[in-house]
Amino acid sequence: DAHEAEDSGKTWLPSLMTETPQEGFALAVTLSQKGVGTTQPDAEVRKEQRPEYAENPDSLIAASHVIATHFQTVAAANDYWRE
Amino acid sequence: DAHEAEDSGKTWLPSLMTETPQEGFALAVTLSQKGVGTTQPDAEVRKEQRPEYAENPDSLIAASHVIATHFQTVAAANDYWRE
Amino acid sequence: DAHEAEDSGKTWLPSLMTETPQEGFALAVTLSQKGVGTTQPDAEVRKEQRPEYAENPDSLIAASHVIATHFQTVAAANDYWRE
Amino acid sequence: DAHEAEDSGKTWLPSLMTETPQEGFALAVTLSQKGVGTTQPDAEVRKEQRPEYAENPDSLIAASHVIATHFQTVAAANDYWRE
Amino acid sequence: DAHEAEDSGKTWLPSLMTETPQEGFALAVTLSQKGVGTTQPDAEVRKEQRPEYAENPDSLIAASHVIATHFQTVAAANDYWRE
Amino acid sequence: DAHEAEDSGKTWLPSLMTETPQEGFALAVTLSQKGVGTTQPDAEVRKEQRPEYAENPDSLIAASHVIATHFQTVAAANDYWRE
Repeated sequence: DAHEAEDSGKTWLPSLMTETPQEGFALAVTLSQKGVGTTQPDAEVRKEQRPEYAENPDSLIAASHVIATHFQTVAAANDYWRE
Repeated sequence: DAHEAEDSGKTWLPSLMTETPQEGFALAVTLSQKGVGTTQPDAEVRKEQRPEYAENPDSLIAASHVIATHFQTVAAANDYWRE
Repeated sequence: DAHEAEDSGKTWLPSLMTETPQEGFALAVTLSQKGVGTTQPDAEVRKEQRPEYAENPDSLIAASHVIATHFQTVAAANDYWRE
Repeated sequence: DAHEAEDSGKTWLPSLMTETPQEGFALAVTLSQKGVGTTQPDAEVRKEQRPEYAENPDSLIAASHVIATHFQTVAAANDYWRE
Repeated sequence: DAHEAEDSGKTWLPSLMTETPQEGFALAVTLSQKGVGTTQPDAEVRKEQRPEYAENPDSLIAASHVIATHFQTVAAANDYWRE
Repeated sequence: DAHEAEDSGKTWLPSLMTETPQEGFALAVTLSQKGVGTTQPDAEVRKEQRPEYAENPDSLIAASHVIATHFQTVAAANDYWRE
């Protein structure tokens, strides 16, 4: 049921650590979407909005900016996956 | 009474420390909302605005960006919940 | 007189140190408002603008973003109020 | 086929390390584009949008901001290519 | 002559160090204005724009955000004026 | 020929190190412009856009924000030109 409340008790963010930078980027994407999902918890509404913003270049750039901000956090957490 | 002044003396931010990254994310959401509540202290007005921005993808992305900025702070405060 | 020049000699920012995270957040709000006041020093004009942006969710989110940016600075200055 | 799903298993981000600052900047550009590609995975749609945002100065400035945010991360990862 | 080229050789930024946080904030304001002046070097044009953005709350919030970003840099440079 | 491809092999960013904060600010401006040039490589188009955004205060503030973000990076790289 897409209308179910999100994250009610479920663990979705056990750690900021990832094996690789690429998994870290994927985590940054998840964090960005979670930020949207927190403000608009109705998955049905979010699904309806998708065509609107996915075809608006400015929305895509803004979404990419949020991902970039979270990637800073995840990359620092992982000490930039230095060896 | 939703019109009551906010935070008049009440402690709402005793610490930036959280047990888990997920609680840290929840704190980042609280800090973002507090930033809005400081500028528009009338909870009634904020409630009326909700349908407007919750159905506007660009507003949701902007709100997610604010959460991302606060999450940087909370994650750094918790040394990224490294073990 | 609201038209008086601001900060002409007055000390308004003696330190970034605060006792608690909550006072740090309040300082971040002050810094955000000061940034606006520097660009529009006429308090009368700022007062007239208030209804306009306080009822515009996107303006409130943008204001919350500025607070978040300053809170990063204040929190780092206070070493995140770690004990 | 431009409609193919992106990054399904492929490694596109093996490391944040680069030899030079200039390669680091190029990586920041790649990360920015990836953030857009994650939200709009259809390369055909992205191609159609290009004329729209590439001739809009505000979109270009916003895209440059995302690159700047990723460049912060890549530069820190490489310890600013100090010698 | 307001049309004169800016900064042609003149030193306007000898250091990021300031005595107090308040002077650091003033430096952040200067850096923000310099960023605008670099893109629009004609002081006459900038003066004409002033009424437009100084009465637009969203422009004021955006200007405050730039100041906040520079204040992060100046505050870090001064080790947050810790004693 | 303004339509020539940019940066094809040329070194434009040999280092983030600068002698002075002011040169660091100039480098931040260069990085901001490079971010725009990467997305719109046609110098002719960029030149045509200039009047449009140079007379739009909001575009100027946004451009100043990008410079501020890059200046954070350059300043950190130079350890804030501390002595």
